[in-house]
Amino acid sequence: MAPKKVTIVGSGNWGSAIARIVGQTTKQNPNDFDPHVRMWVFEEMVDGKKLSEIINTQHENVKYLPGKKLPENVVAVTDLVESCDGSDILIFVVPHQFVPKICSQLVGKVKTDATAISLIKGMPDMPYSGEFVASPRSGLAVHKSSGIRLISEEIQEILNIDVAVLMGANLAPEVANDNFCEATIGTKKKKENGALLKELFHTDNFRINVVEDSHTVELCGALKNIVACAAGFTDGLGYGDNTKAAVIRLGLMETTKFVEHFYPGSNLQTFFESCGIADLITTCYGGRNRKVCEAFVKTGKTIAEIEKELLNGQSAQGPLTAEEVYLMLENNNVVDKFPLFASVHKICKGEMPPTAMIDNLRNHPAHL
Amino acid sequence: MAPKKVTIVGSGNWGSAIARIVGQTTKQNPNDFDPHVRMWVFEEMVDGKKLSEIINTQHENVKYLPGKKLPENVVAVTDLVESCDGSDILIFVVPHQFVPKICSQLVGKVKTDATAISLIKGMPDMPYSGEFVASPRSGLAVHKSSGIRLISEEIQEILNIDVAVLMGANLAPEVANDNFCEATIGTKKKKENGALLKELFHTDNFRINVVEDSHTVELCGALKNIVACAAGFTDGLGYGDNTKAAVIRLGLMETTKFVEHFYPGSNLQTFFESCGIADLITTCYGGRNRKVCEAFVKTGKTIAEIEKELLNGQSAQGPLTAEEVYLMLENNNVVDKFPLFASVHKICKGEMPPTAMIDNLRNHPAHL
Repeated sequence: MAPKKVTIVGSGNWGSAIARIVGQTTKQNPNDFDPHVRMWVFEEMVDGKKLSEIINTQHENVKYLPGKKLPENVVAVTDLVESCDGSDILIFVVPHQFVPKICSQLVGKVKTDATAISLIKGMPDMPYSGEFVASPRSGLAVHKSSGIRLISEEIQEILNIDVAVLMGANLAPEVANDNFCEATIGTKKKKENGALLKELFHTDNFRINVVEDSHTVELCGALKNIVACAAGFTDGLGYGDNTKAAVIRLGLMETTKFVEHFYPGSNLQTFFESCGIADLITTCYGGRNRKVCEAFVKTGKTIAEIEKELLNGQSAQGPLTAEEVYLMLENNNVVDKFPLFASVHKICKGEMPPTAMIDNLRNHPAHL
Repeated sequence: MAPKKVTIVGSGNWGSAIARIVGQTTKQNPNDFDPHVRMWVFEEMVDGKKLSEIINTQHENVKYLPGKKLPENVVAVTDLVESCDGSDILIFVVPHQFVPKICSQLVGKVKTDATAISLIKGMPDMPYSGEFVASPRSGLAVHKSSGIRLISEEIQEILNIDVAVLMGANLAPEVANDNFCEATIGTKKKKENGALLKELFHTDNFRINVVEDSHTVELCGALKNIVACAAGFTDGLGYGDNTKAAVIRLGLMETTKFVEHFYPGSNLQTFFESCGIADLITTCYGGRNRKVCEAFVKTGKTIAEIEKELLNGQSAQGPLTAEEVYLMLENNNVVDKFPLFASVHKICKGEMPPTAMIDNLRNHPAHL
């Protein structure tokens, strides 16, 4: 078999950190991969120079990952279609709101047997097809009937190719720093492409496990942000370690139930992978959702006001995901089975005081 | 059925916090429990007064839980045998090294159909019967053939009564402060006594789940301290959140494998209970084992020196448990399946530099 061509669709902080890994693994395994890795770069000017040219001459993404060398076999390409032309593996690592537009431009332009792998945490913003209805306040696309759509499903739907996911406790700066960590690849075609995808990302310091229920992997990456909001509330209220641990645990329980409800057939073992408990822990102790929600309680300001102050106006993902998840729970008449998710949403909207969250957890279904 | 008589064997910090709960629940459920709860107090003098008399007049354990009222229906009794006479439920909450002596004194003096419940985290110190051999450096009793003995098994062996356990993310001061938290009861006779034991401990702020595989519950409480040592090493070495999360996750993986190896038939779901991930998280972020091991790396002193400085000479449980667990793994020829547990032991003993731990985790069986 010819060596597989790889394209990284995206070149932000996380994309550049991953480029360091993929540049290395493709070079080390020339029988399996073409070491010429293309990275799509959304062109912009940095100090009067084109970012793509800086990357291709200095081998550094000076804007999004300054101070870290990129392998010389990773080449910046500014034309999206050209960057993916003839590629066998497309690594999607862009902000989730750009997914529909990017994929639309690639329709009919990628190999029909290409495999995509999404490194995007979160849920889709805008509905692509008529089957989905716009949600009241961005966040994600809600299926007309009952379900939700994941980013992997959005890519699959538009490009009609297989989509795997890679998630884990992976803060980009630490990965770029070659600190030891783990990640989880979820692919429904584990037998066919599991080993190859693992080879593409597995290094001495970035250890990969491959599992089959990719929906669980992906949902862990999205729902953890709601749990982090709840953890932030307990921090803001000054509760101790016991309470925070209970809240994180109940959040994990609701995550398992949510997956079970909307994507039956998940494997409990997957929640023990890096995408599950490991990513949840780091997000609930570090992470900006926790921080925003702690400040929300302590200052009494709105989420939007705090985002302006702490995140330069960017949105924290947790409150948005909580809103969409709440809508889904309502549509399915299961709000009472997810008191933590529901409480986070109502608190963020100002419809319930943060102190009421614990009252709502006292008779949690997990205690019955 | 006559209301059950309850005795709390122990009156330290954790015992007194539990006395506040049990005093309340027995009073609220007089049909099921005799509200007259006896608490065995090892007599000592506090400011010229007997501790037992202070407890019975001021209703406060001024030495071990100052500032918190004990329910008036909890009565201090200084004679061990008298305190347990005719009791149906014996709550063991003493330092683990006192278990053999206390139980020996109770042989033939407790109801033959009594139920014990152990709240003691750790592993037995000294072998009781000839079937067990003394371990090289305290910590726990090692079974001659291969296995280990749990504290619940030690109690069961001496008193020949059923023994359940209660574990969870339960820092005593926070429980005494009525902060919301959760705990897990493990009882092999869930059908017979699960509901009653739950009623005895379940309050608005102390939420109980009951599971059947009590060995898993108990081993989670002991093994988490080894994982906390590993987490402390990563903190001491200045690794970031990704690495710490990976180490905690791999520690949990080894915990599940350990239980599977020595007590086959555990339920994966039990690790999601408070005794599992919740207690693990608090121990790896707070907790004295983490603290001692962080200081170990940063100062270059021995564990014993740091215990003297930070713990007033008391022993941290993690290094001791790691030593005994290592011996067990060696006896069973499975050291290579538990690289994290083995590394913690060798690092604590000064046989391996802390920096080598991560090297030993790179090819962890969980990555294969």
